[in-house]
Amino acid sequence: MKNKGSTECRRLSLRQCARYLKKHDNYIILTHASPDGDTLGSAYALYYGLNELGKKACVICPDVIPQKYDYFARITDHVVREGATVVAVDVADKRLLGTLKDEFGDIVDLNIDHHVSNTMFAKNLYLDADASATAEIIFELLTLMRININDITAKALYTGIATDTGSFKYATVTAKTHIIAAMLYEYNINASEINRLMFDTKSKRLLELERQVLKTAEFHFDDKCMLLCVTAEMQEKTGCGGTELEGIAVISRSVEGVKAGVTMKQTGDQEFKVSVRTYAPFDASEICKKLGGGGHKGAAGATVSGSLTQAKEKVLQAVKECLEA
Amino acid sequence: MKNKGSTECRRLSLRQCARYLKKHDNYIILTHASPDGDTLGSAYALYYGLNELGKKACVICPDVIPQKYDYFARITDHVVREGATVVAVDVADKRLLGTLKDEFGDIVDLNIDHHVSNTMFAKNLYLDADASATAEIIFELLTLMRININDITAKALYTGIATDTGSFKYATVTAKTHIIAAMLYEYNINASEINRLMFDTKSKRLLELERQVLKTAEFHFDDKCMLLCVTAEMQEKTGCGGTELEGIAVISRSVEGVKAGVTMKQTGDQEFKVSVRTYAPFDASEICKKLGGGGHKGAAGATVSGSLTQAKEKVLQAVKECLEA
Repeated sequence: MKNKGSTECRRLSLRQCARYLKKHDNYIILTHASPDGDTLGSAYALYYGLNELGKKACVICPDVIPQKYDYFARITDHVVREGATVVAVDVADKRLLGTLKDEFGDIVDLNIDHHVSNTMFAKNLYLDADASATAEIIFELLTLMRININDITAKALYTGIATDTGSFKYATVTAKTHIIAAMLYEYNINASEINRLMFDTKSKRLLELERQVLKTAEFHFDDKCMLLCVTAEMQEKTGCGGTELEGIAVISRSVEGVKAGVTMKQTGDQEFKVSVRTYAPFDASEICKKLGGGGHKGAAGATVSGSLTQAKEKVLQAVKECLEA
Repeated sequence: MKNKGSTECRRLSLRQCARYLKKHDNYIILTHASPDGDTLGSAYALYYGLNELGKKACVICPDVIPQKYDYFARITDHVVREGATVVAVDVADKRLLGTLKDEFGDIVDLNIDHHVSNTMFAKNLYLDADASATAEIIFELLTLMRININDITAKALYTGIATDTGSFKYATVTAKTHIIAAMLYEYNINASEINRLMFDTKSKRLLELERQVLKTAEFHFDDKCMLLCVTAEMQEKTGCGGTELEGIAVISRSVEGVKAGVTMKQTGDQEFKVSVRTYAPFDASEICKKLGGGGHKGAAGATVSGSLTQAKEKVLQAVKECLEA
């Protein structure tokens, strides 16, 4: 099997993956850009696990780690890059390494992931597309390796699983997901506090932004499509931006009867970042492909240029084609 | 032990509770008023379970059952009231029987509940205050009684547990909660669809109401208290009311730094239903007691009379005393 680069990508079993990790001593663990709870939780759980084995490791994130993850994402040791074993977690494509792509994109030794869309850019890959989160895989890996899990590792793992499943709500959840959660409850994880931080805490300014965004709500195609706009002005006036805006896309799919929720976030004078959320059988990645983007079946994105009116028109045309197909 | 009425209340073990249910043949199962997923899920799971044993049973709800529960809450058989065994589920106090209180308040034979505040109004009580939901207890009961659980029973149980824990987010969740969820995944429950219905689907009109409510947001006491108002006018203009407004109270506690979220819903010209949501160590039931109401540590309610300004003043005074205590 070939990846998109020129190197071979070897698919590992979980056991082979465990053996691989036991064999080396210096690890650089990479997360994807715009880090979420799963890539961070997986990276840190692996970091703490490798530490337990007496190995050197560090976590490198392409972007600043949001403060809300401070309860498990601590500053890690320094590892000399030369000769280190590079492990990526939850990274489906080397482009998702963002600012780290040039340095690490072609030299990832091991990738541990759960995205079915994984482009096999690493030399070795453990992929379990049935796992609800990469953190679910890391839990199995640590268990298989008989590595002691401590409270902070358990917090990191719980965070990865809870955030990537929308708190156990998504179709990706299985009995195994709940069993792992039950096992993590044996540690002092204070899950309700994690959930409060991850799901139920927003800033005052975000509340104000949401209020303004709700005013822009438009319904199209017999109310099957809801469209929300986050203009540059709203972002400036409220001071909201970046990963803080993640939750808006969820709102776009939350109304009864809506099959495709669209959020258009202005990122430049004539540029909009479009997030699409769909319910089956509609495929968000199909809509975004038409716009030059991509993603998952339920959640995808693209960048569209033009004035707001022009961009809207392009997006709605793509949604229409998909809803009619 | 005496309950607030004059009859004795006998505390049962789970095994005694199971034996009790095996002994009788005609059951009337009561839910609490303003029914939620737990009281309904528990009632219907018990109903299906008793049916499996060949017993006659019916579910009676003091209010209309919201349509969104249609996937498990079907019309039940008719049971002649005279001589029937009356079982209440998830009913902490006979007042919560609402319109059924007069008929059934003093003749509940068995109450199955998880509220620590249970007033022991029934003749027999199985209370497990460590259960995250009454549905968790019903699952244990059906298992202990070796009653076959089928898909619809599993859906009812999952609904009860998921809704009463805010989708596994609250502090009441334990390892056991997740293990039961894992076991329910063995059935064809389509959990993600249940979660979509329960948590991520709102009407267009509710979206509009939420937007209007966000405009009323006030912050008090160094932003430790957030106050939202749902005026009669908003309810009329949008057409929103009843259980549809449940989710608003959650918003009131969702802002960073807020320890006490208050929602004031106008229910009359000079009357407001107040919902309080707090984070530990602050106790919502303490705040509501001062206003003549009550409830749980994290969520409580009261009815306050006066103009909006007067009512606000009373409520804020109660919040202040609690925050300062």
